[in-house]
Parts: sequence; structure tokens; C-alpha cells
Amino acid sequence: MRILIVNPNTTASMTEKAAQAARAVAGHGTEIVAATSRNGPASIEGHYDGAIAVPGLLLEIRAGQAAGADAAIIACFDDTGLEAARTLADIPVLGLCESALMTAALLAQRFTAVTTLERSRVLIENLVVRYGMGGRAKVRAADIPVLDLEDKDSGALAKLRRQIELALTKDRAEAIVLGCAGMTDLAQLLQREYGVPVVDGVSAAVKQAEALVAQGLTTSKRGSYAAPIAKPYTGSMQAFAPE
Amino acid sequence: MRILIVNPNTTASMTEKAAQAARAVAGHGTEIVAATSRNGPASIEGHYDGAIAVPGLLLEIRAGQAAGADAAIIACFDDTGLEAARTLADIPVLGLCESALMTAALLAQRFTAVTTLERSRVLIENLVVRYGMGGRAKVRAADIPVLDLEDKDSGALAKLRRQIELALTKDRAEAIVLGCAGMTDLAQLLQREYGVPVVDGVSAAVKQAEALVAQGLTTSKRGSYAAPIAKPYTGSMQAFAPE
Amino acid sequence: MRILIVNPNTTASMTEKAAQAARAVAGHGTEIVAATSRNGPASIEGHYDGAIAVPGLLLEIRAGQAAGADAAIIACFDDTGLEAARTLADIPVLGLCESALMTAALLAQRFTAVTTLERSRVLIENLVVRYGMGGRAKVRAADIPVLDLEDKDSGALAKLRRQIELALTKDRAEAIVLGCAGMTDLAQLLQREYGVPVVDGVSAAVKQAEALVAQGLTTSKRGSYAAPIAKPYTGSMQAFAPE
Amino acid sequence: MRILIVNPNTTASMTEKAAQAARAVAGHGTEIVAATSRNGPASIEGHYDGAIAVPGLLLEIRAGQAAGADAAIIACFDDTGLEAARTLADIPVLGLCESALMTAALLAQRFTAVTTLERSRVLIENLVVRYGMGGRAKVRAADIPVLDLEDKDSGALAKLRRQIELALTKDRAEAIVLGCAGMTDLAQLLQREYGVPVVDGVSAAVKQAEALVAQGLTTSKRGSYAAPIAKPYTGSMQAFAPE
Amino acid sequence: MRILIVNPNTTASMTEKAAQAARAVAGHGTEIVAATSRNGPASIEGHYDGAIAVPGLLLEIRAGQAAGADAAIIACFDDTGLEAARTLADIPVLGLCESALMTAALLAQRFTAVTTLERSRVLIENLVVRYGMGGRAKVRAADIPVLDLEDKDSGALAKLRRQIELALTKDRAEAIVLGCAGMTDLAQLLQREYGVPVVDGVSAAVKQAEALVAQGLTTSKRGSYAAPIAKPYTGSMQAFAPE
Amino acid sequence: MRILIVNPNTTASMTEKAAQAARAVAGHGTEIVAATSRNGPASIEGHYDGAIAVPGLLLEIRAGQAAGADAAIIACFDDTGLEAARTLADIPVLGLCESALMTAALLAQRFTAVTTLERSRVLIENLVVRYGMGGRAKVRAADIPVLDLEDKDSGALAKLRRQIELALTKDRAEAIVLGCAGMTDLAQLLQREYGVPVVDGVSAAVKQAEALVAQGLTTSKRGSYAAPIAKPYTGSMQAFAPE
Repeated sequence: MRILIVNPNTTASMTEKAAQAARAVAGHGTEIVAATSRNGPASIEGHYDGAIAVPGLLLEIRAGQAAGADAAIIACFDDTGLEAARTLADIPVLGLCESALMTAALLAQRFTAVTTLERSRVLIENLVVRYGMGGRAKVRAADIPVLDLEDKDSGALAKLRRQIELALTKDRAEAIVLGCAGMTDLAQLLQREYGVPVVDGVSAAVKQAEALVAQGLTTSKRGSYAAPIAKPYTGSMQAFAPE
Repeated sequence: MRILIVNPNTTASMTEKAAQAARAVAGHGTEIVAATSRNGPASIEGHYDGAIAVPGLLLEIRAGQAAGADAAIIACFDDTGLEAARTLADIPVLGLCESALMTAALLAQRFTAVTTLERSRVLIENLVVRYGMGGRAKVRAADIPVLDLEDKDSGALAKLRRQIELALTKDRAEAIVLGCAGMTDLAQLLQREYGVPVVDGVSAAVKQAEALVAQGLTTSKRGSYAAPIAKPYTGSMQAFAPE
Repeated sequence: MRILIVNPNTTASMTEKAAQAARAVAGHGTEIVAATSRNGPASIEGHYDGAIAVPGLLLEIRAGQAAGADAAIIACFDDTGLEAARTLADIPVLGLCESALMTAALLAQRFTAVTTLERSRVLIENLVVRYGMGGRAKVRAADIPVLDLEDKDSGALAKLRRQIELALTKDRAEAIVLGCAGMTDLAQLLQREYGVPVVDGVSAAVKQAEALVAQGLTTSKRGSYAAPIAKPYTGSMQAFAPE
Repeated sequence: MRILIVNPNTTASMTEKAAQAARAVAGHGTEIVAATSRNGPASIEGHYDGAIAVPGLLLEIRAGQAAGADAAIIACFDDTGLEAARTLADIPVLGLCESALMTAALLAQRFTAVTTLERSRVLIENLVVRYGMGGRAKVRAADIPVLDLEDKDSGALAKLRRQIELALTKDRAEAIVLGCAGMTDLAQLLQREYGVPVVDGVSAAVKQAEALVAQGLTTSKRGSYAAPIAKPYTGSMQAFAPE
Repeated sequence: MRILIVNPNTTASMTEKAAQAARAVAGHGTEIVAATSRNGPASIEGHYDGAIAVPGLLLEIRAGQAAGADAAIIACFDDTGLEAARTLADIPVLGLCESALMTAALLAQRFTAVTTLERSRVLIENLVVRYGMGGRAKVRAADIPVLDLEDKDSGALAKLRRQIELALTKDRAEAIVLGCAGMTDLAQLLQREYGVPVVDGVSAAVKQAEALVAQGLTTSKRGSYAAPIAKPYTGSMQAFAPE
Repeated sequence: MRILIVNPNTTASMTEKAAQAARAVAGHGTEIVAATSRNGPASIEGHYDGAIAVPGLLLEIRAGQAAGADAAIIACFDDTGLEAARTLADIPVLGLCESALMTAALLAQRFTAVTTLERSRVLIENLVVRYGMGGRAKVRAADIPVLDLEDKDSGALAKLRRQIELALTKDRAEAIVLGCAGMTDLAQLLQREYGVPVVDGVSAAVKQAEALVAQGLTTSKRGSYAAPIAKPYTGSMQAFAPE
């Protein structure tokens, strides 16, 4: 089984980190293939970055599926482009936020996702509501620029710890969800430290991808995710035209 | 006051129709400027078309704001790219679905939006929930390819009538919302015919845009719509980098 | 176009203030006509005042419609009598709370309405839920008796500022809604001061009224707002009998 | 214990029917006192009738409390004026809809309220949502003018049966709520006929009133139902001024 | 009328306290019969205790119904086994949480239930949501082991007062619900002390039971509470087989 | 990795069927151990059967954990005893309904669970709401006694097909969830037949169990699932006392 992880931002060190996390949990016989978007922002911080990242992301998913991937993961906690990718692809597509929230829901009745910047907080709160977790999950922002997570000396970990502690005491969180693909290497450390489940989206998505493939399940093509209808695409988007 | 209407698909006849509808309701002193996306699909039918249409749409909004527009309207009922546009622009940005649902809510306690294809139905139902109308608005699909609305002989109007009639009898709709920018020319005809309010998204959005400008209100830049952070953008998306 | 603003309390200075705010945003060719209820309480503070104010309010709306008004506004943030007025009138009727919340929703994903007294807070929270904004809007009370807003030396403005500051820091409000018709003159001052959109209900309602009239839309008479059925009315309410 | 039942419409035969139903379920030592509003519509059909009925209703509650009533019931399924009455009175005040829905909720997981006219249906659906029953209760209208319930030959019972049968088969109702004070005499007949619980609002409210009085409980005066603040009331509403 | 109160834990002093509270509010002619479970935990603190308590509880309800009870009450605020009991019995069955929340809802728009241990808090929050009170009721835990309520010197009352005070100031509670059967003797004391309604679940359930019996209402056997289907039961559960 | 599947009813043929389905999807190195409850009903049809099945189920989970299981699955679509089991065990515990709904949510925006009997329908609808899927999942009952699924000639499959067809046409289901452990062998057949994803709860739960174990995650012991507190248990439940 081959699982494609696409980093929808263009920062290769984050891709590498996600690939490592993925390989650490992948099952026997699962091959992890990682791709970094070649077209878009260096990090996804808010709605604008996210929207512009989507075409580059979809290119990688299309290429990955053509190259034989059995499932794809979008390695951004905003689940950027998830619905478009499910519409495009025949293979299952997973997002980090959806996968992580569902995983946390199997472990705890109340939990908190800690993300990077305040501007991403409402965006993730909207996903929480949409995925049906509005009554049990809260979202906090640790005031960490995404790329600071790549720099050990940025103070990012201390800020993250502070929000986890507030989650445990103020939100009555029974588990923590790490709300950025760039935090994936911290899950085990923090789980040991706080003694509650700490869910990483990359790991969660890999296991969901494996689960779907093993069950012979893929995205329904009846209704909202039906394959794109053939039509002219114009200008710089010409290459995206469905056949 | 200058209001920019951007058609996020590349079909100029739909832009023209929207511009006419806009001019018909625009207030004294409002200038309507219409732009057609030059990069993207010929029509937006489902999540994939919508996602790919966004960069082309954002280009037009950026250009329109630079040219002095006081507000912008995204002329697609899916509210494609609305959040990204609000993040990008300093001027107010309106979507057809949001504007039309809010308008209908001032006129009726129950109403139904009739859109084109089944694949757009869940997408719009999700918007309905997100805009807080889940308890009072239903969505129907008339099985009309979007571009058939440009062709008088396509049978599209008969299909639309059929769904309106079902909305009135089965959904207990007290008002109808036309769920596609391409239906904008039919609102008055259908309102006379059925004797209930028939809301067109283009008209609704124009009046909301005027309303915001007249009140000196624009998108909040505190929190989720904060302006994009300067950072490198790569490849075909380089031109989108925020400054 | 003639828009009637009815103050459902009997304090003429509040009517005057609302009329001024209305005229400041009214479009070219819009005439603002203001009426003060002649039957009811001097201010509306809670459910009882509100219920007793309704017949006096409806009298003014009936008279205003007979005199040629194209739309009516109920100038109280509790939206007192809004449903009854929509049932009675053939012209569109707007409430301040509904209009202001919908306006704020076009500008921000999270916002807070600041009202006067604690006793009105739950009442407005119930409206927030009913209008579908329960997930994004909060309500605060500034502990200001309504008529103190008419007195520059009452300390009301300082109390209001205190709650706005809490809204911005604690509620993560991205915009502020002024939750009383008597605060209408403060919107611009506070918007400049805090750098976020500050929405005034009177202004918002005027623009919604204009929007509906320009679109040829009025309250649906199918279903819940159907015109009153002719029947005997008795005693002091005899004059209210529908014909 | 003395329980006051106020019929907020002016039709004395409906008051009498409600009083009989009340006496049939009243506990040992409970005295039922019935009053008919002297100011307002002959029946309450929709928002307008309901709003105009409130002052006349409040007069009777104020008089009843002064005369020693221990609790009051508003004998209309729309719960007209319930919040204002709770604000006014020191004794508990019950509405038929709220009491009946809560009673049905103790007996069944799904149930349907059958009301009279279509125009009351959305109004009652809104109450259902507000009382927290939106997920389990449906509302149907039997197309019966309220006063037809006073006339044995009106065909009203057949229409009511038709909707009950649809509720059982289509809504999967496990119990039925009679959605009009004028249906109170039919509950036992229909319960025998259909073999499911049939809840009458008058009976339910009497037992809730007794329950509260026996427990020494009355409306909280902290927060939203705080007693009206003394202030001038003007014109025809002068008599309603709180002291 | 005979009302059976079953204490689903095995601590007889709690049964006695509940029986006393029940007799204090019972109507003329109501006989209160109390039973203590003979099979299960000494107190119910969390999901596990609750699940194991159910068979012992159902035995007592079955026996009580056979002995002529007209209604049954499960004297635990977790409403442990309520649905199974309603399925089993032909007589109405009441839970403390459901009865108390519904009673509080007739008195206040916002209220808070104060329970014993943190581990019961989410469980009760889930009931609050399920009973439709999610928008108006909050839950607090006072950190009191259940059996400490039987010991006057345990400091339990001080902890309870602390949470009530926080409920009034932080939650804007207009009424308090005592969230444990063991607190039943404190309701009147605390109501006098704080000047807001304090609802006790045992008292509330007794009055709801009387109300249903007086109205000739019992659990619907159509749908979700249909009587158990005869089938083999095995091992230690053999005695529970439906006939 | 060893995964324990407990059939909470006493019918061994259903256990065997579940074990086969589990083995078909289990990953390399996963051992499936199946246990049949020895204490309880032969099938779980409604609330009463479910409640009585719990102690027998918990015995098997306790024994399985002691014998080295790494995760446990409760093989009943009602998720009977799931919360108690999570409280009891240190290893992750999965339910079929929760696992299947979450799996379907990754594949489709609308889906329908088809269960056996009408009496289980509301119970599962309540789970759907609790798991946050109320807006996207519907439940249908095929009128099949659970044990008929063990008999090829019972006509059960035809009834199931009928409801799947209604789900696709009336509910706009994009995927189907099989709502009973006894249907586990039909998933692949029906998926091929209808061309939409057909999710089986046993398979879904096995993959979720593997996913949690691989990630080093288990139920949070902070808050609502905290381990049972040591205390006396009496009578037939003595053996269940936590240590």
C-alpha cells in the first residue's frame, strides 16, 4: 500500500518532518511517499494562503494518484482543499484536522486543539463545528508563526506548553490535539509530559488512510464528491481542466 | 460609489447578465463594474471547479480594489473564495449565497434555495448551516447544467419551475432563493408567477455592498480576516505573494 | 422611497436621535419619517415593557403604511413586536437586532453585541440564537439604564467602553454591535477608537429597508406572516381588529 | 392551592372547556379559577392576534395574583405573553405548549404536536426549538379555524384524526400533543383510539403549576425575569405602569 | 396513588433521605414507597458504577410494578438506566436529572446544576444536551465524594455553596439545580440563603410522577420504548429474560 | 497486536461472523480474539436488552485485558456499554456505530445507517446526534429481527436492499452504513451491487483499534473516563467491584 502525503506549503523541512512521523506509525507493507507543493506559499497562515495553496496541492495529488498512490493525505491542519481533492481523486483523501479530531473523539469526551496563530483559530473552530465536534472540542492559538516550529530556539515549544496547560485546567480537556502539521514531532514528548493522549494529525491521517484502503473503501462518487465534469479551463488554470 | 462584480467563471455572457441585474437595483450614484475571470473554469459545478476558480477570482478583486472599487461581489452562489477574498481585500466583499439567504430571512420564516446540479446541493446546504439558516432554509437542485441557463431553449426554466412548486408545497417555503448567478434574470418573472418573494443573489449582494459602504463599514482586520502575512510564494503562484 | 422609523417607547429624544442616524446613511431619494409611540412605556427594559409596547407600535406602523411608507423600522434592539408587525403590514418591516447582526456577519466571523441592562441580555441572546448567530455572536450588558443614554453625564459611555474592551479581549470579537437604539450616535466615535467595525442597528435597518424596496421585495404572505384573519376584537383592543 | 387559568382570547366557551379539563386533573385541595380576557381577539390565530392579546391577558394575571392565585396558566398553545407574564408575576406562570412538550418528553422520544392553522405551525415550531425539543418533536397543522373546535359539526375532529394518523406513520410519533387549548376535551378519546399517549396542554399545565407550588418554587427574579422597573407608561397603556 | 422510589445505589441512608424529601412534597393520597438496590455499588460515581447498577435497579422496578406501584422514580441524578426502565415498565418512570432540568426551565432562562465529582460532570452535561437544555444550563462539580453528603462534618456543604456562588456570578444562573440525590435535604436551606429557586431532583420527580398518573399518561409503547421481546437470557442474567 | 472482539449477546454464530470480518481486514501482525458474552440476552433489540447485556460484556473486556489484549471492540451497533467499558479498561475500546459513522464521514457528506428493528432506530439516531453526525446521517430500520440475519432464508437481505434503495433515492445517501453486527458479511456484496461505499462496523472498528494502538494512544483517564473508584459492590454484582 502506498500513501501519498502532500505538504501544501512549499517548505520541504516540514514535508520531511511529516514523512518521518508518518513512517513511524505506518503499518507493515505501507510505503509513505511525500511530496512538497511547488506552487504556493511557504506556510499556510489563514484563509488567503490556504486558498492559493490549493491548485499546487491538487497537482501533486493528481500526479500521485497517476503514479499509483492508494490514498492521499493533505498535510495541513486547516484541511485546505480537502473537498476539492476528494472530488478530483478516485483514491481516499484525508485531512489532518478531520483525522485528528475523530481520533481524539475515540479517547476523550472533551479535548482541545492547539494551533499556531490566532488567525487560524476561527478557521479551525469552523472545521470543528462542521465535523460535528462543536460540543466537545475547543481551539486555542499559541501565537507561533508556522515556520518558527522549524526552529528549535524560537520559543515555540514553551508557548505550546502554556496553551496545553490552559486547555487542561480551563477547558477541562481530557486530550490534546496538535493543530499544525509542523508540531508532529512533539506529540510523544508532550503525551509523556502531561499524561493525557496527545493526538498528531499526520499520524492520525496515515492510520485512517490505511484503514480505508484495507477495507476497500474510497470516496463516494455519488453526490457531492462526483468527479469533475469535463469543460474548458482558461488561462493559467488551463492545465487543471478535467478530462 | 463603485461596486465591482467578479464572475469567477470565464463565461462572459453570465457576467453580462449579472451586471444588468446589478444595474437594475443599484442606487443613485452607484457605478457597477463587472469583470470576468481570465483564469479558471467556464462554469462552477462542484468543489473542484470552485477551488480552481479562486486564484483567478482573487486577481480580479485585487485589480479592482487597486482601480478604486469600494466593494466587491463574487458572482457565484457557492460563495467560492469568499473568505480568502475578505482576507485579501480592504473593501467589503459579498457573496451571493450569504446575501440572498440574509435577504430572504427578512421576508419569510421558511424558504428554499433552488440551485442547478445535485453536486452543488450539499455544498450549498453546508453554507446554509454555516450562515445559521439550517433550521429554516432548504436546498433543491433542478438538474440544470449551469451553462444551460444561457440557452433559452434548454428547458432549464421548466425544471426550475418544477422545483419551485415542490418547494412551496413540500418544504412549506414562504419565499424562494435563486441558487445560481445565471438565474438572475428570472427573479421578477417567477415572483409575479408564484406570488411569493423570489430573491436573486446578485441583486441582494449589490444592495448589501451599498449598505456597507454607506455605513462606512468594511471587513474587520482583527482576527480571522487579518491581512495576509508577507512571505515567499513559489512557482505559478508567485504573483499572489502578499507584500 | 419613504421609510418609517417607529420608536416603540414614548421618549421623543430617542426617536430624534434614531431619525438623525437614519438620515445620515439614507440613500439619495430616501425620506426618513419618524414616529414615537403614544401608548406604552418610556423605555423598554425587559420582557414586560416590550410586550406592553407592541400595540402602540403597531398603531404607528398601520398609520405609517396608510400614509404611504414603503418600509418600516422598529427602533428597539429587542425587535419588539417584529413578527406581529410583519403579519400586519404589507410593506417590509425591519428590526434593529436582526439587521445589525446580519450586517456584522458580513464583516466578521465573531462579534459581540453590547446592550444596556442585564435583564435584556438573555432576551437578546435568544434573538441571536433565533437568527442563527448562536455560534458566532456573544452578548454583553453594560449596566446602563436605557434613558441614561440620553444624558451625557451619566457615565454610560465609560461603561460601554469597558464592555467593548472585554468583548475584544475575552470574546475575541472582531466587530462590535451596539445593542440599543439609544447608542446610535456613538457608532462612528467607537469605530474610530477601537479600529474594528462598530455596527449601529438603526443605520443597518435603514439600509436593509432600502435594499428590500429597491429589489421589489416585501414580507411573504404565504405561511407564518399571512395577513390577520378578520374577527371580533373586544374591549380596549377593539380598534385593532383586522378587517 | 388556587390556580388561575386565563384564556387570552375572549371566547368564554373555550375558557369553560379549559376549566373543565383543569378540574378533571386537579389534585385534592386545588381550586381552579378561570378568567376570560376582556380585551383582545376572539381567537388567536397567528402572530398578530397573539401580540394584541397580551395586555388583556396580563390584566387578568395581575388581577388574579392580587386575588390570591398561587399560580397562573395561559390557556393558549402559542404560549402568548408567557415571558412578559413571568416578568410581571411573583407566582409561577405556565404555558400550554411548554408544559405539554415537557410532559410528552417524559413519555416518548419522538412526538408530534397537531395544531389548528398552517399560520400557527411555524410559530409553534419556533417554540419547539426554543424549548429544546427540535430534535424530537414535529408540528402539524390540521387546517381547522380555532373556533370550529367549538362546533361539533365542523368536521374538525376528522381533520385532526387525519393529522394524527400521518404523525404516527410519517413522523414516527410515539405520542401526540394536542396543539390548541380548544382541543382539550378530545385527549382521552384520541388516546383510547390510537393507543399512544395524547397530551393535552391544559391538563399538563395544571399539574406543572401544582408541582411548582407544592415544591415552594416560583419564577426566579434574578436575571431575565426580574420584576418590571418603575417608569412612566403613556396613553392607553397607562394602567400597565409597574409601580 | 403509589410512587416507588428506587435508590440504584445500595446505601440505605440515601434512600431514606430521598423518601423523606418525597413525602414532604407528595400530594394528598400519594403513598411513597422506597426501595434500595440490593445488587450494585454503594454509590454511583461515573459511567462504570452507573452501568453495573442498572440490573439491580431494574429488579426493584419490576418488583415494585408487580406490587402495584403507579409510577417509579430512579433516585440518581445520572438518570442511570432510565431508558431501559421505561422499556421494561408499563408505569411511568422518572429520572431526577430530567425532572429537575424541566422544572428549572419553567422558572428561569439560565440555570446551573451542581453535582458531586468532576467525573460525573461530562456525563450530566451530555444529559443536559440530550434533554434539549444545552443552550441554557451549565454543570459544575463541587468535588464531593457522594457518600460525604451523608456526613455532616465532611465539608461538603461549604464546597457546594462555593459552586453555587460561582454559578450565580460566572454562569449568570437564575436558578440552581442540585445535581445529586444525596443533596435533597439541602434545597430549602439553600433557596432561602441565595434567594433564587433551588430545585431538588427527588421532589421534582415525585411531582412529575403524580402529574403523569393524574393525567392517565404512561410511557408510549410505540417505537423506542416498546416492551422487550421474549428471548433467551443466559448465565447470571437469566432472571432478567422478558416473558 | 491483539484485538479482542466481544459480542455482547450470547449468540456464538454472530461472534464467529464478526471474527471472520475482523480477520479479513486486520493488518499484518494483528491477532483477532473473539469472545461471546456468557451472561445476557441472545440478541440486543432495544434499550432493555442492551442494559442487561452490559455486565456480561464488561466481564469479557476485563478478562481480555488481563489476558493481554491491546484493544477491545464491542460488537454491537448500539455501542452498548461503551462508556462504562472505556472507564473500566486501560486499553482503547471501540464501538461499531461510532467507528462506522466516522469512517463513512471520511467518504461521503451524506450517508444512511440501515439497522434491524424500528425500536433500535431512535436509539441509533441518538448516537448519531451524540457523535456529531446529526446533520449528515440518517437512520433506517429494515424490520429484521436480529437473529434472522443468521438465517439465509429469512428474507432479511431483501428487506435490507429495499432500505438501501430508499436511502439512495430519498435520503440522498452517498454511502451506506450497515447498522448491525450481524450484517458484517454483506458489506462487500452490497458495495459491489450499489456502487457506493458500504461501511461495516466490525471492519471499521478493527482498523480504528489498530490505528490507536499503532499511535500509542489509549482512553484518557483524566475526566469523564477516569478509572472506577474503589468501593463496596453488593449482591449479584459483588464481583464487579473496582479494586
